[in-house]
Amino acid sequence: MARRIAERVWAPGALIPGEEVLSIEFGCARATVNRALQELARGGVLVRKRKAGTRVALHPMREARFVIPIVRQEIETKGGAYQFRLLSNQVEKAPGDVARRMGLAKAKDMLHVRCLHLSDGTPYQYEDRWVNLDAVPSIRGETFETISPNEWLVTHSPFSQAEIVFHAGVASAQEADILGVSEKDAVFIVERVTFVPQKPITFVRMIHPASHRMVTQL
Amino acid sequence: MARRIAERVWAPGALIPGEEVLSIEFGCARATVNRALQELARGGVLVRKRKAGTRVALHPMREARFVIPIVRQEIETKGGAYQFRLLSNQVEKAPGDVARRMGLAKAKDMLHVRCLHLSDGTPYQYEDRWVNLDAVPSIRGETFETISPNEWLVTHSPFSQAEIVFHAGVASAQEADILGVSEKDAVFIVERVTFVPQKPITFVRMIHPASHRMVTQL
Repeated sequence: MARRIAERVWAPGALIPGEEVLSIEFGCARATVNRALQELARGGVLVRKRKAGTRVALHPMREARFVIPIVRQEIETKGGAYQFRLLSNQVEKAPGDVARRMGLAKAKDMLHVRCLHLSDGTPYQYEDRWVNLDAVPSIRGETFETISPNEWLVTHSPFSQAEIVFHAGVASAQEADILGVSEKDAVFIVERVTFVPQKPITFVRMIHPASHRMVTQL
Repeated sequence: MARRIAERVWAPGALIPGEEVLSIEFGCARATVNRALQELARGGVLVRKRKAGTRVALHPMREARFVIPIVRQEIETKGGAYQFRLLSNQVEKAPGDVARRMGLAKAKDMLHVRCLHLSDGTPYQYEDRWVNLDAVPSIRGETFETISPNEWLVTHSPFSQAEIVFHAGVASAQEADILGVSEKDAVFIVERVTFVPQKPITFVRMIHPASHRMVTQL
């Protein structure tokens, strides 16, 4: 069906055959046709309307999806051996800009955890994280000896919503030192605020060397 | 339901009530409950199994989605006035690395189009694009006077699959000149290859000043 749409056998805006007809034509179960139609509709290629039938989208919205992985799994999926190094772990007053990014009216004490994730011994990501202790009190006293803050939060904190910002920047002297690059080298930065309704959980800044590639398909 | 999962009223792995029960409890139609359950399942928060019922995911995969927009719409959505400037438009032999990125065994003649997209008169994105004339023959002779190559392809070329790579880099002398930044300044680069089965359509490199932010929610 994707090929027919791609090759304009089914033109933009055209009504496509019903599920019964398609299941006979493709020699498969109607449930399989239905799943495939759902998948194409999710991708914005088809527009399904109750009773009015299914049409090829006029202007397909090309929607990319990507999963926010545990960084250990991200590195292992790429074939690297994972390690992390805890750099600091202490309760301190969050700076004003961190509090603002978390939607808090004023700065307060938070857990500040910094660590370096490595792939085959090479710096992969420097994680600089602030955690709202009111949202995740059980993180207090965690030593992060066997589990990184990233993985701890994914498995222990409540399911959350998030806003993620991707951008390019330059490494500060401290970031360059941690990542093993030169000061002012280009870096790929991901910043994420996660929250449950009305309550921020964590703000994390993840900094990668310029060699980092984020890849997605659609 | 999202709040209950967030607050662990419904714990990870727990079986949640059936649709009938939920529709009574929330005072809404069963179809509404079904749509909400589908949405949460798509987000990886719930795991639905035929007959076995619906459970809260043990490790929710946090899936972000973003739409690949027409750059004009992207700029206008952010409140900017859109303009574009065509920099060059000619058929020439594609370099070897471009051909490789497009999965072609050897370099061949392609349409090479370069243009600059501006927001409120300020450079926003420099687009450097190669188009496979075998896949989109009708683009030959297009002057791009009233429509940018990006928008032309989204509306005229067949629906396609794509691989997208995001990374940080530094501006070359030419890129810096076009974007109005300094040579070796950090830039945010998006590279995209689109294709229909067995045939590449276009390879585009989109370069943004370091001030660019790509934002997504999940």
